[in-house]
Amino acid sequence: MIISEPKLRTFTQQVFLSIGCSKAHAELAADVLLKSDLRGIDSHGLARLAGYVRLWDKKRINSTPDIKIVHETPTTATVDGDAGLGLVVAPFAMQIAIEKAEKYGSGWVSVRNSNHFGIAGYHGLMAVEKDMIGFAMTNASPLVAPTFSNEKMLGTNPMCYAFPAGKHAPVIVDMATSAAANGKLEIAQRSGKQVPEGWIQDKQGAYTTDPHALKSGGSLLPLGSDRDHGSHKGFGLSATVDILSAVLSGANYGPWVPPFVAFMDPAPNPPGLGIGHFLGAMRVDGFRPVADFKADMDNWIERFKSASRVDEAQPVIIPGEPELEAEAIRIKEGIPLVDAVVKDLNELAVRFGLEGL
Amino acid sequence: MIISEPKLRTFTQQVFLSIGCSKAHAELAADVLLKSDLRGIDSHGLARLAGYVRLWDKKRINSTPDIKIVHETPTTATVDGDAGLGLVVAPFAMQIAIEKAEKYGSGWVSVRNSNHFGIAGYHGLMAVEKDMIGFAMTNASPLVAPTFSNEKMLGTNPMCYAFPAGKHAPVIVDMATSAAANGKLEIAQRSGKQVPEGWIQDKQGAYTTDPHALKSGGSLLPLGSDRDHGSHKGFGLSATVDILSAVLSGANYGPWVPPFVAFMDPAPNPPGLGIGHFLGAMRVDGFRPVADFKADMDNWIERFKSASRVDEAQPVIIPGEPELEAEAIRIKEGIPLVDAVVKDLNELAVRFGLEGL
Repeated sequence: MIISEPKLRTFTQQVFLSIGCSKAHAELAADVLLKSDLRGIDSHGLARLAGYVRLWDKKRINSTPDIKIVHETPTTATVDGDAGLGLVVAPFAMQIAIEKAEKYGSGWVSVRNSNHFGIAGYHGLMAVEKDMIGFAMTNASPLVAPTFSNEKMLGTNPMCYAFPAGKHAPVIVDMATSAAANGKLEIAQRSGKQVPEGWIQDKQGAYTTDPHALKSGGSLLPLGSDRDHGSHKGFGLSATVDILSAVLSGANYGPWVPPFVAFMDPAPNPPGLGIGHFLGAMRVDGFRPVADFKADMDNWIERFKSASRVDEAQPVIIPGEPELEAEAIRIKEGIPLVDAVVKDLNELAVRFGLEGL
Repeated sequence: MIISEPKLRTFTQQVFLSIGCSKAHAELAADVLLKSDLRGIDSHGLARLAGYVRLWDKKRINSTPDIKIVHETPTTATVDGDAGLGLVVAPFAMQIAIEKAEKYGSGWVSVRNSNHFGIAGYHGLMAVEKDMIGFAMTNASPLVAPTFSNEKMLGTNPMCYAFPAGKHAPVIVDMATSAAANGKLEIAQRSGKQVPEGWIQDKQGAYTTDPHALKSGGSLLPLGSDRDHGSHKGFGLSATVDILSAVLSGANYGPWVPPFVAFMDPAPNPPGLGIGHFLGAMRVDGFRPVADFKADMDNWIERFKSASRVDEAQPVIIPGEPELEAEAIRIKEGIPLVDAVVKDLNELAVRFGLEGL
């Protein structure tokens, strides 16, 4: 089912208003979710809307948060999200980073007491629009085992680095630090397909290609998959995200990060508050004139796109390019939603007395 | 051959003095190199000393550089290394980042016109000693092909993230963004062993286990190894290092990064100056009290060390732990050098009239 972006946007805003969000928060949260669907990252868009509502039902999401700075220097801050939607807490924090960067060249904000923040790329792009370099990271519910372990200790903990370019689109690196994102696993689960070796291990720590292994005690593997191929590096990157997002802010880290799903209870005796994010912005002109940087970015992009190909039909893909192509198509043609998501959304419509899709 | 650390330190300082370095630069450069050997990263220590001298012979390393800030804001700067040793240029830049962080909470320095900077961890640790979080990256001679390409376009471009802890040792993530570091390949080349599939591809872009393939048109693969296992993520990380280090500073990037070996000439028509680094420091107490952060770091480390094991004999390794163990042993017992390195060093001794090893 393909639905136009404006129709979905209005619907999503109405759902957020229905759980008590302010108009400004409902519009912002809808913008973050829609950006994900527009960019083709279906796992982080409207597919999650019903899940946010279920967490609100359980009082684990506060729809009227008092988001505030609890500690700061001219270029650093810690923000407490008051258990609000990450979809509004993270842009609030990135806005602070941008304002600090405007004054002092750079700004860095660690966030505690938040929830799932959508796609990291949304927040990175906020900086790019100001001719800044954006950093965005978040920790997440534990699904990934460190190298040599079979215990779920880390989330898929994404990192985003976002760079403005000149005549070309910005370069947006936005990636889970696990070998495969959970969304890819969910697609395999739904379609009954096996997954490549190196994505997951079973309860005992043996490789498996069964995408359902995660539900029976298995775990995702870090980027690199095994020690020989650098899984300790994927673990190190994921640890970096966890520390910058949560140890630095006073959020929960490691296995204590609260689950994103309402049917699983948070771990007992958590060391911190909610989940954590880390957001940063650096002015390009804090290092060199913007025009010079953009000219070199364009040259960088062109040189990499023209790199020699293994398969003549497949050029090198610049980070962010597939998402931009998806966005151009979906703005025009609408957003495709799978039946399960449409069903979820129509149930929300009935519950809140909204017009269904 | 095992040689004591003080003896090697004096020898290394004398070599740097012999090529015209100041006393301060010779001591600093030797400190960076020795730190690598002490920490067990043999590929980045004294094994490279003769190579630096060969680059100086070719006038590609300037032993008396005028290292200076060419652009800055309160928390950002671009440093021109004047073709100096990266071993002295990078600590100079990190010192600026630390001083900016002392005043404003954070400091970020992009560096152009530099050379190989040793191990990234050295520079990250400079920040950790000040209760700051350290970032250190550098681009490097092209050896790695992006996903879908068979062309050497990127270096093994390491990233380092360094975090102080309390009673435990700091967490130091210091990793090449390729599936395997070039040093590991060199070990396989010397010992005549095959390497695992997923480290390198041949000239046509087919996987090979022959470690010599790199010399006949082959290339290293990004972390993730292939598209299914996330090589586009390794490419994205490597691109991030390249852009922060070189596009931001005005250094050379991508395939234009000058080779680390003197027998290969730099590419014609380079877009920038030398190689690039990126260094950053953030005060921990810019986010929360240092004691609180360190207590949570200790808890993080203990929880991860006690994670459930796949093999009872092999616990989870905290990033930085193996290097610290090597350092404790080598400070006491001396540094083992392979015959080829001892031969190189003794040739330098003869050339410069120094006492041999």
